[in-house]
Amino acid sequence: MTTLYGYYRSSAVYRVRIALNLKGLAYDQAPVNLVKGEQRSEANLARNPQGLVPVLESDEGTPLSQSMAICEYLDERYPEPPLLPADAEGRARVRALAQLVACEIHPLNNLRVLKYLVRELEVDEDAKLAWYRHWIIEGFDALETLLKRELGTGDFCHGDTPTLADICLVPQVFNAERFECNLSAFPTLRRIVDNCNALEPFQKAAPSEQPDAG
Amino acid sequence: MTTLYGYYRSSAVYRVRIALNLKGLAYDQAPVNLVKGEQRSEANLARNPQGLVPVLESDEGTPLSQSMAICEYLDERYPEPPLLPADAEGRARVRALAQLVACEIHPLNNLRVLKYLVRELEVDEDAKLAWYRHWIIEGFDALETLLKRELGTGDFCHGDTPTLADICLVPQVFNAERFECNLSAFPTLRRIVDNCNALEPFQKAAPSEQPDAG
Repeated sequence: MTTLYGYYRSSAVYRVRIALNLKGLAYDQAPVNLVKGEQRSEANLARNPQGLVPVLESDEGTPLSQSMAICEYLDERYPEPPLLPADAEGRARVRALAQLVACEIHPLNNLRVLKYLVRELEVDEDAKLAWYRHWIIEGFDALETLLKRELGTGDFCHGDTPTLADICLVPQVFNAERFECNLSAFPTLRRIVDNCNALEPFQKAAPSEQPDAG
Repeated sequence: MTTLYGYYRSSAVYRVRIALNLKGLAYDQAPVNLVKGEQRSEANLARNPQGLVPVLESDEGTPLSQSMAICEYLDERYPEPPLLPADAEGRARVRALAQLVACEIHPLNNLRVLKYLVRELEVDEDAKLAWYRHWIIEGFDALETLLKRELGTGDFCHGDTPTLADICLVPQVFNAERFECNLSAFPTLRRIVDNCNALEPFQKAAPSEQPDAG
């Protein structure tokens, strides 16, 4: 059994929990409390010098980092059910949708970035919230357009089974709701996320269901 | 022959140029001038509703977005020379190194983010430069530690041939130098980037070599 080092509310860890659950893999959870700064502990820095979570132990015991890389690792090691379609163009589409979230929205709203805004740039609470919502709304605008117009979209972001794109989308929508973003302009996202959250692997990955949930 | 929509100085486009050159693929370049705001033009938004570059036409004419997804597409369609190692753990390592750059450093220093800092948060030039350098130095600190201590590192980030990790690293170091970051603490990065830049596919992908270079 593998160990996942993470934090219940980290959306990058949430992605890996969904992937592990979709694959039906059992795993231990080792909490790293981000609010208490445990990601900067010696033990966590040894696992990941970036001081970030998640870290997942590989089958050989190597600490793997970066959530999308971990999901692709799981998909290569445990091919069923697949997290990517079979054709190269479909795979490019799914990866691009996932990266729209993971490279364009999420990095800007990371805890360390919000801390920098407050501590170094002396941004007040309202401006911090506006920043948070701005990047979500800008990214979701593009994502809604893509998902609405492209034929590849089905019950899920790509076709009728969950993929890496859904794995990234669901935690981002969770964050958006936590920070009270208005999501009424994104009916396609809403529909897909509802379809995901009707499935047990997504339900069991939710922050509120984790042993370290506060 | 495929078309790459991009801008000579965009580091995400620079990554795709390196990948295309490593694969020995011919391509047309269609410039999208980011300084003039052409990424928000109707034509570019039709290709990519995010208003970002790069976009690469797939073999079927579909516009592909997100540079890492495009590189993996090229690797799947044109397997030689490979941009990822053959083993799952090695692939996870290369993807994680690439994502350390593409998810943790680069998104924070994107043009649209720097504009938001100046326009919305009224950050002055010095604070903007400090922000820019902060995320590079923090990310490079972690990357240097990983590359120095892990056995997978060779002449390049992983082994003795260029991979997706090098494709992401070289443009990030180019940006760091452009913004006069002090890179003396990163001798392993330096060595690897020098090895990359000794190769023609990297040389030909450099911003100064592009038809739209200013």
